[in-house]
Amino acid sequence: MPRQTSRDLRNESRFEVLHALFTLGPSTRQEIAKHTGLSTATVATLVTQFLAEGVLRIATVEQNTVGRPYERLTIDPDRGRILGIDVAETYVDATVYDVTLGPLGQSEVALDEHQNGQAYVVDGIVAAIDAAVAASGTDRKRIIGAGVSMPGQVRPDAGVSVFAPNWDWHDVKIEALLEERLGMPVYVDNPLKAVALSEMWFGVGRVTKSMAVVNLGTGVGAGIAIDGSLLRGAANNAGEWGHTLLQLDGRPCRCGRLGCVEAYLGVHGLQTTLAEIDPDHPALQQAQQSGFVEAVAAGLAGDDPALVELARRTSHYLAAGLGDLVNLLNIPHITLTGWTTVALGEWLIPAVTAELPDHVLPGSLPGLTVEASRVAGNPVALGMAAFTLEQFLGALGLASPASAPSTRRRLRSPA
Amino acid sequence: MPRQTSRDLRNESRFEVLHALFTLGPSTRQEIAKHTGLSTATVATLVTQFLAEGVLRIATVEQNTVGRPYERLTIDPDRGRILGIDVAETYVDATVYDVTLGPLGQSEVALDEHQNGQAYVVDGIVAAIDAAVAASGTDRKRIIGAGVSMPGQVRPDAGVSVFAPNWDWHDVKIEALLEERLGMPVYVDNPLKAVALSEMWFGVGRVTKSMAVVNLGTGVGAGIAIDGSLLRGAANNAGEWGHTLLQLDGRPCRCGRLGCVEAYLGVHGLQTTLAEIDPDHPALQQAQQSGFVEAVAAGLAGDDPALVELARRTSHYLAAGLGDLVNLLNIPHITLTGWTTVALGEWLIPAVTAELPDHVLPGSLPGLTVEASRVAGNPVALGMAAFTLEQFLGALGLASPASAPSTRRRLRSPA
Repeated sequence: MPRQTSRDLRNESRFEVLHALFTLGPSTRQEIAKHTGLSTATVATLVTQFLAEGVLRIATVEQNTVGRPYERLTIDPDRGRILGIDVAETYVDATVYDVTLGPLGQSEVALDEHQNGQAYVVDGIVAAIDAAVAASGTDRKRIIGAGVSMPGQVRPDAGVSVFAPNWDWHDVKIEALLEERLGMPVYVDNPLKAVALSEMWFGVGRVTKSMAVVNLGTGVGAGIAIDGSLLRGAANNAGEWGHTLLQLDGRPCRCGRLGCVEAYLGVHGLQTTLAEIDPDHPALQQAQQSGFVEAVAAGLAGDDPALVELARRTSHYLAAGLGDLVNLLNIPHITLTGWTTVALGEWLIPAVTAELPDHVLPGSLPGLTVEASRVAGNPVALGMAAFTLEQFLGALGLASPASAPSTRRRLRSPA
Repeated sequence: MPRQTSRDLRNESRFEVLHALFTLGPSTRQEIAKHTGLSTATVATLVTQFLAEGVLRIATVEQNTVGRPYERLTIDPDRGRILGIDVAETYVDATVYDVTLGPLGQSEVALDEHQNGQAYVVDGIVAAIDAAVAASGTDRKRIIGAGVSMPGQVRPDAGVSVFAPNWDWHDVKIEALLEERLGMPVYVDNPLKAVALSEMWFGVGRVTKSMAVVNLGTGVGAGIAIDGSLLRGAANNAGEWGHTLLQLDGRPCRCGRLGCVEAYLGVHGLQTTLAEIDPDHPALQQAQQSGFVEAVAAGLAGDDPALVELARRTSHYLAAGLGDLVNLLNIPHITLTGWTTVALGEWLIPAVTAELPDHVLPGSLPGLTVEASRVAGNPVALGMAAFTLEQFLGALGLASPASAPSTRRRLRSPA
């Protein structure tokens, strides 16, 4: 077990006070103490330190008819700015956040999925950041750091994109490349870890410590939190639910294996299913995956029979795959995210919920919830900004015990 | 995140000192400090307390040519006795251990799988314990407690067998029933949790904090440890890998679902596969599952072609199922246990190891090991004894942070 010291405990308490303010919004010391379980004396001491450091500020002072006035505290949104960047095969989405993780400006740059050079991708990231910074009117000197999610396997402790299959990238030192180009600290991680962290901070994590966030898009995968800790695995590779089996020796998956969940539930999997139902269906004429998903949603709204059958089969596959996740992990909460969820969730989720009891062991069923994520905005960009904020708090001596892969990072103080 | 206090830290340190002695055998204070990462001053203080409490004793005193004599410490094996009991549908295996978890005597009682009343099962448990106590020459007054693994879903925090599908048990207060009959504290848990704990204490857990122990027997399942913590799930139901999919809408599983791993890799699954290859094969005439497995092992030794094909298909199923476990959790170590492993491991494990790279994502493959468990004896009984010892240490103020489901337990001090 990892060794904890008294200093770790103090840092954990400091982290919890700040995290409570993210969760609760502006709060009194008493509300923070109640939420965290810390004593009011401890909270008062930590708040005094935070006010001196300029991390917190007093939002409002209220006066009851009796008693002393009381202060509501908030994280000082002017303490700095944070970038959250979602890099996918076909786009870069960059968002500027304040340190309460409120979005200030956003920009998306398209990537040509047939180009895959490092310089091309880095140029796209820089262009998206420049546009987002401009859109938000942010002074670059005030940016604390940039969290960048890269597709494929990423080792945040080494700042390396280990393997991006669609780009044929191997052991690219992406963090160093970006830090040199951007002139600011960069933190890289994997999108499944980012969606999990955004859900832990801003989604169902507000009421539970154990959850899986299932992303349904071009690729599919799960971000998993167990008892408040992000499941990373030995090489930061955990959560590849999309590459567990639905059908032994079934459809070829782009990972090279046969029968993976992604070959049925990724957008290409949905196209394959529709082609099995009706190879001439007009939705299959869409050149882009996003156009296909939108065409399916539009057709379902009009009760197109082939698309109703597609939704039926897809719900069956999804219920089966989620059943595996629940049976193995006995997690009580699953949230769905990704653009297939956004476009088709209203058809898929009720059918999946109805079928799940056929797949889940009786002991793991009571209280199980499956719902669309309520996290607003791009959860990958938000999660990467949250990681970057954790690193910044860590540099202030506020390391989160739950999600940080290492403590080697150093992020600069804002100007 | 769970709140930790200074007292928790002290208890954790005490637990680690004892756990180091289980792992290392008789050791000096310096060796304990090196192994645990605690300071020598802390270790010296804790050892002094343990000696006063009679938990430890001095095993040997050695004198180098220079310097002071130094003492090797050991857990006092005479401090008490612990029972570990593995209750399955067809047998009860009871073992008496000393507090270093060395086995002193064992007994097995057969259960008729067609009888399932509570009184019948409790009688079988009592009979097995009585015989094991007699075989070991143990004075019952010295028994600290009994750890009893029950099949199906168990809630150790409530002492209840929630659901035993093959017995049609629901919410049986088995712990209270057994405590009344045995006149000693009883701790109940699920066999997957027990095999995981025995592997954590005495198997690959000595060199790694994250592992899955895959049990292959009548049923199949996995005990999972992540970063030194046993994965229990919301209702102590995690690890049901046997009820994840190998084949959507495939073979009927006894859980009621179609296509589960257990329907291919449980002993009945092996029988089904062999019947697909050669419905008239003589191994299928064996009345007992254990006889079937032994007949398969004997036939494989003689290169029986139908059984060679059975081993080939079974290895394919196993490689696929383990690939799912690795892709989802990115665990670096898998050990196999259970009687199918004991009888057929020499045929299955090399084939599975060869095929695994076809199922595992490249990033999760480096360093991955799959091997038969090296834990000696019945790992379920051993794990249940280890849980009981943890409870006893917890009652001394030595709660393990890793595996204990609750702190409500009270085990008596030995006479």
